[in-house]
Amino acid sequence: MADSNTIRLRVFSLNCWGIRYLSKHCRERYAMIGELLSREEHDIVLLQEVWSEKDFLCLKRKLSSTHPHSHYFKSGVIGSGMATFSRHRIHDAFLYRYSLNGYPYMAHHGDWFGGKAVGMVILNIGRLAAHVYVTHLHAEYCREKDSYLPHRVVQAWELQQFIRHTSSGADLVILAGDLNLHPQDLGNRLLRTYTGLRDSYTETAKFDGCEDGITLIADNPFINPKELCPFEKGIRIDYILYKGSGRVSIQCESLSTTKGSVPDHPFPYSDHEALSADLQLQTLTQQAGRDETRGEQDCAAGKLAELVDIVTEARTEVKVGLYCAERMRYTAARTGVMGMALLLLELAIAAVPWLALRADQPFPRASFYLLGVLCFAILITTFLLYIFYTMEVKALQGAEDQMRLAVGSLQERLRGFPLAQPLNRLCRPLEGQDPCPLEPEE
Amino acid sequence: MADSNTIRLRVFSLNCWGIRYLSKHCRERYAMIGELLSREEHDIVLLQEVWSEKDFLCLKRKLSSTHPHSHYFKSGVIGSGMATFSRHRIHDAFLYRYSLNGYPYMAHHGDWFGGKAVGMVILNIGRLAAHVYVTHLHAEYCREKDSYLPHRVVQAWELQQFIRHTSSGADLVILAGDLNLHPQDLGNRLLRTYTGLRDSYTETAKFDGCEDGITLIADNPFINPKELCPFEKGIRIDYILYKGSGRVSIQCESLSTTKGSVPDHPFPYSDHEALSADLQLQTLTQQAGRDETRGEQDCAAGKLAELVDIVTEARTEVKVGLYCAERMRYTAARTGVMGMALLLLELAIAAVPWLALRADQPFPRASFYLLGVLCFAILITTFLLYIFYTMEVKALQGAEDQMRLAVGSLQERLRGFPLAQPLNRLCRPLEGQDPCPLEPEE
Repeated sequence: MADSNTIRLRVFSLNCWGIRYLSKHCRERYAMIGELLSREEHDIVLLQEVWSEKDFLCLKRKLSSTHPHSHYFKSGVIGSGMATFSRHRIHDAFLYRYSLNGYPYMAHHGDWFGGKAVGMVILNIGRLAAHVYVTHLHAEYCREKDSYLPHRVVQAWELQQFIRHTSSGADLVILAGDLNLHPQDLGNRLLRTYTGLRDSYTETAKFDGCEDGITLIADNPFINPKELCPFEKGIRIDYILYKGSGRVSIQCESLSTTKGSVPDHPFPYSDHEALSADLQLQTLTQQAGRDETRGEQDCAAGKLAELVDIVTEARTEVKVGLYCAERMRYTAARTGVMGMALLLLELAIAAVPWLALRADQPFPRASFYLLGVLCFAILITTFLLYIFYTMEVKALQGAEDQMRLAVGSLQERLRGFPLAQPLNRLCRPLEGQDPCPLEPEE
Repeated sequence: MADSNTIRLRVFSLNCWGIRYLSKHCRERYAMIGELLSREEHDIVLLQEVWSEKDFLCLKRKLSSTHPHSHYFKSGVIGSGMATFSRHRIHDAFLYRYSLNGYPYMAHHGDWFGGKAVGMVILNIGRLAAHVYVTHLHAEYCREKDSYLPHRVVQAWELQQFIRHTSSGADLVILAGDLNLHPQDLGNRLLRTYTGLRDSYTETAKFDGCEDGITLIADNPFINPKELCPFEKGIRIDYILYKGSGRVSIQCESLSTTKGSVPDHPFPYSDHEALSADLQLQTLTQQAGRDETRGEQDCAAGKLAELVDIVTEARTEVKVGLYCAERMRYTAARTGVMGMALLLLELAIAAVPWLALRADQPFPRASFYLLGVLCFAILITTFLLYIFYTMEVKALQGAEDQMRLAVGSLQERLRGFPLAQPLNRLCRPLEGQDPCPLEPEE
């Protein structure tokens, strides 16, 4: 039922896996992606892992007529850029780099070098201000023993902080990207509950795509199915999330994903599946806006209690990470001290004959130099590691401090609700009662 | 004229110069600062360069009764923390680390290691949401040949971006800190014009402090007056800035600074002077709020034109920085290649007698090892420098991209104003005309 108050908005998201010379069929896949985008003419296109700016510029040229507005977010040393293409003018862009993103010595995983961030662009759709976010979180390489979990939780925490604080003036908010989080993972719950963002997969009226909405599928030829174990068919880690405001309500009319293969092409667009959401924006009258807002506040107490639990869980996870980082820093320091002791010992042994004015050394010259080089290597490595772990400890402590503050504030707000009523009753406050809004500061 | 709609808010700011074991009389000065704060009972205290968390915790204990709420922002590897103490509950805290902050090899300047960031805390003052920011930008060591200027401009750009995007839900905004910017410096104009923040020194009804409001004064015993040259008396680089909203108007009733010496103490609180502002908040009725907002919009066109000029100037400065960074990266790469060539040459010379099965080397063993170590050192250093400059280039390009986008958007908005009227006439639009608001996205 399209009327003058209704706007249709089509959003596209894909992790392009575009590492030049490393990703398979990189150039051909970019050409396919370009074709798809210029044919489909989505309003907003959000791409992740566009590692090279040259590829972005190539896409930009190709999409100049369909998507005249674009922005490229640079994040890490050698990657892992994110790109936005839009049919609506982009007025502003802002980037937030996550404080933690894996370890430089885990070079085979590459996340640290790629850098991870969240980019925001602000665009006007008609008279509505849309804040559109694109992000990519640290990958999960082993679900059973995920050493990156605290980093990903901190990233999810910073992501929700960034969205919450930068979107209070927005009429609508859209977030798309490869979150590397399963639907019920801690980071995902934290993000959705704190920001109020809704998942287009669970909210859509019509879905066309892989079973359970999975976006990393075993059938994809670029994927080693063993890496998906124990999820035989695949996992859902790419998302398009959205929320409206008092001025506009949003419904997801349909959501579709690619299903591995692409007709007339020998391989798919990427190792991830692409998402395409069809959103219906309905601008609200002032009264309808107030009703909408009130409806959202109805569950404020229940949501607050849930949020306290989630943030507490996240805090525990960060504390575990902090314990590990402190232990690693201690190990680095201890190894450094041992390297220094070894070097001093070697110098002392070398000094004895020199002091005694004897020309012959007690051990062979080659071994002497080799041991010296080894000691120096230990010293430099442990020094760099010590600095790195100190930064990790600081970032984890910083996130933990913010979480503590947030839990305290949430609990205080929760105490503001009438105590006599159980929480489930509080979800439907009595008429005339003003439920404490979830975010009074916004 | 205090009535029920009027709230008095006292804000304090000081760069504590608190580097343990390096700053003079560090412990004694913290004790003095603690005494001052517990005596004066400001509503909000914003401290910079609290390098050690131990000193923060010490202050926290001392101020537990007067300022029960606090937050410590960690930024760099070994510093340069910022602290907030408040009489009002802190609900939320968020930190943004600037993407550029000097060079690690300029260790004697130390800014890179200290890290620079802007911290935000959200507190409720009565029913008002106050977004309070504390920051510290990169120091200026030589005004004539300031190699850090592009970095400081990018920091000012990111600072205004952060404040603008995170404060749209705020009733009042306060920013305090050591900006390391003179009042008319590019970064300062960029910050004030884009955010609309007002300078308490120029706005105050009553001022008590050093001449011209200077906060780095030649009379301070911790300062070498030669470093202030050509500003004999000193410079004003510490600020308390503020702005209200449609819900509250703010007036600065009085501003005071310390004047170097402290009665009954042999030395001052820091090498910077402390600022103390007395703000009067007047909550507005809806109609008054609308009038206030309209009054602010009256000069929208003139302000837009000014903003275009300032952002263009900033863009030029960033481009200069980009040119330098790219040249430095090229130099690093060239030096690295030369180091590699030298190493290969040495290996070739060493290989000739080995291939000819002769035991004697053509040059002395000691020189051989020394040259090898030198080549390795060159290779490692130039590799690290190359990575560093690549990151610098990316950050500068990112800021430049954002600025280009902003200028385009500002110019488009400027074109929305009736062209027949000269800009100075546009500052007073005709009745009934709706001036294009400066920030429609917020």
